[in-house]
Amino acid sequence: MVHNNMNNKFSFSLIKKDEQSKARAGILTTPHQVIETPIFMPVGTQATVKALSPAELEECGAQIILGNTYHLHLRPGDELIKDAGGLHKFEHWDRAMLTDSGGFQVFSLRDISKITEEGVWFQSHIDGSRHFFSPERVMEIEHNLGADIIMIFDECPPSDAPPEAIVKAVDRTLRWAARCLDAHIKTPFCHGYEQALFGIVQGGTIRELREKCARELVAMDLPGYALGGLAVGEKIETTYDVVNFGSDLLPEDKPRYLMGVGTPIDILECIERGIDMFDCVLPTRNARNGSVFSSRGKVNVKNAKYTRDFNSPIDRECSCYTCRNFSMSYIRHLYMAGEILALRLLTLHNVHYYMNLVRSARIHIMNGTYVEWKAEMIAKMLPSDQGGV
Amino acid sequence: MVHNNMNNKFSFSLIKKDEQSKARAGILTTPHQVIETPIFMPVGTQATVKALSPAELEECGAQIILGNTYHLHLRPGDELIKDAGGLHKFEHWDRAMLTDSGGFQVFSLRDISKITEEGVWFQSHIDGSRHFFSPERVMEIEHNLGADIIMIFDECPPSDAPPEAIVKAVDRTLRWAARCLDAHIKTPFCHGYEQALFGIVQGGTIRELREKCARELVAMDLPGYALGGLAVGEKIETTYDVVNFGSDLLPEDKPRYLMGVGTPIDILECIERGIDMFDCVLPTRNARNGSVFSSRGKVNVKNAKYTRDFNSPIDRECSCYTCRNFSMSYIRHLYMAGEILALRLLTLHNVHYYMNLVRSARIHIMNGTYVEWKAEMIAKMLPSDQGGV
Repeated sequence: MVHNNMNNKFSFSLIKKDEQSKARAGILTTPHQVIETPIFMPVGTQATVKALSPAELEECGAQIILGNTYHLHLRPGDELIKDAGGLHKFEHWDRAMLTDSGGFQVFSLRDISKITEEGVWFQSHIDGSRHFFSPERVMEIEHNLGADIIMIFDECPPSDAPPEAIVKAVDRTLRWAARCLDAHIKTPFCHGYEQALFGIVQGGTIRELREKCARELVAMDLPGYALGGLAVGEKIETTYDVVNFGSDLLPEDKPRYLMGVGTPIDILECIERGIDMFDCVLPTRNARNGSVFSSRGKVNVKNAKYTRDFNSPIDRECSCYTCRNFSMSYIRHLYMAGEILALRLLTLHNVHYYMNLVRSARIHIMNGTYVEWKAEMIAKMLPSDQGGV
Repeated sequence: MVHNNMNNKFSFSLIKKDEQSKARAGILTTPHQVIETPIFMPVGTQATVKALSPAELEECGAQIILGNTYHLHLRPGDELIKDAGGLHKFEHWDRAMLTDSGGFQVFSLRDISKITEEGVWFQSHIDGSRHFFSPERVMEIEHNLGADIIMIFDECPPSDAPPEAIVKAVDRTLRWAARCLDAHIKTPFCHGYEQALFGIVQGGTIRELREKCARELVAMDLPGYALGGLAVGEKIETTYDVVNFGSDLLPEDKPRYLMGVGTPIDILECIERGIDMFDCVLPTRNARNGSVFSSRGKVNVKNAKYTRDFNSPIDRECSCYTCRNFSMSYIRHLYMAGEILALRLLTLHNVHYYMNLVRSARIHIMNGTYVEWKAEMIAKMLPSDQGGV
């Protein structure tokens, strides 16, 4: 485990490229944490990864977690978090953080949004109050929050948008990216350390648009790049295809972040296609619905067949607190009885599972055995009590 | 901290009697844990102390926790728990456990209960199914569950019952106690260790009835005695008065357990009146309602004055994980946002507070400073942001 070094600025170095695939292992240095990539980033929407404590996240091996700009702006407010000393201090998380730009959220509320070239008006899902996000405003909010990595404010078209809407979204995303960068570099460090601004490549599933968007963002020489607007309803083969050509559009010496993806299989497939960073609500949200990931695929803890399973943990191959100490029978009882401990134990397991997955992937990249290992892992995951992952 | 010794059978020894009050310090030896009294027992109704892990309970210094016979019989079922190896193994709790008899719960459902001399018919609050509890049946269930301390099945009259109803309840409680003891001593150890059967003194607030009930139960030479049917609506001064004369009715060399009481002040007052053991849902239930105990009294974390309180923990005098790491501002945010972590952090603090309270009480009994310390503690607790505890 690489430890914190507050003196480090942001940097990325590739330390191994797989010879049989595009998989990479790297070191991503941020003000709060030196991160080993490929990495999964648990999502902490409202300044907490749901159901887990910071101490548990560290035990799981989490090196960087997300915060959501949209949610934190609305509650408790980014000014409050700034005054608390930033998001790290506020939520007692000493390792790295990344904030999204809120673009995905405000465009998901499109029926109550007014979109102009200047920015987007939207209503709070909490109290209906009106708010305005522009590139400049989002930079200000993300500076207040103080994450190590911050994202540009992008236009996210819906998955079923016609090509001409995607063309317009790419053009606007590029103009907004320039405004974000301009606002970002003009602002002194809000919390005494550098925040790295990542670009987001949009363009739906249209290769020419992805190429254009990537080309212009790469020309801005940002410290990292994300692929956005994927896993929003398209077929998974299409996602993999866009990730495959999309990662080739990005500089080799910068970290590549695939936003909002995905299942364990998706993560292994996209590591193979050249991605370094992932985030997804799947491990935490599924846990709260009684669904957990295991070395043998997905497991539904509500299944009656676990009622008297006193001797099996969720996953015999897992070393998390849940699997070391609790039977399927007990976990099922807690879940059926609506106990908070069920949500805790299941979330802890799922986040541990994801962190272990990317840690193992990295080891196999380093050893030159990634492609074979990945194939074995996926074969083991497919048979499950729900018929596949 | 005294550690486990599975070879120990049940015993109790007084090691200090306060000279200025009836407060006592003792050692209660059970198959799973040697317990230092006075002790508070967190309530784990459905085989979990709500929102906490077993590891956290141990960190708080919990030495014995409760399980509820009524709830566990209905879900997941005491036969299932027996087959899992007992409640300790099922919920991964290695220290001592106590189960109540379900009497309080089935008599709270009195409009759907049929009470006969043989026992009580009642309907499940979960699915409306009909169930029967008798002294013999409750012993069987408590044997299946396997707690170190089990309680006799008693009749619990409502707080507003007329005297003649309390007379009848005492007589039936005594007959049922004899049947419980008979069923208990005829049964081989269900889980390989002795379970101690405690009597419950009923009698409402009527001195003569408490005296009669205690006299007959004491004649049965049970290993411990509880005062039941208190803190069910009567004035707190009346509770203290009944506890005061009630504890005098019990043998000095047996542990005395006050069921379902109470606030931190109640616990200090009743330790002074000769009680050794307490249980109450207050620390866990209040936590889930945003109310916490502190050295300065009760604190409502929802209070708007904490919105920007970045530098204060719940209680500066507390050393729990919550108070070591999180501000009032953050905790309030989590609570207002409906985050599970809020319930966890607040519950952890409250249970830590209660465990620390009884640990401190014991130290002051040992030092001969209990009465002065108690007065100081209560004086500090009274001023609070809700106008008293």
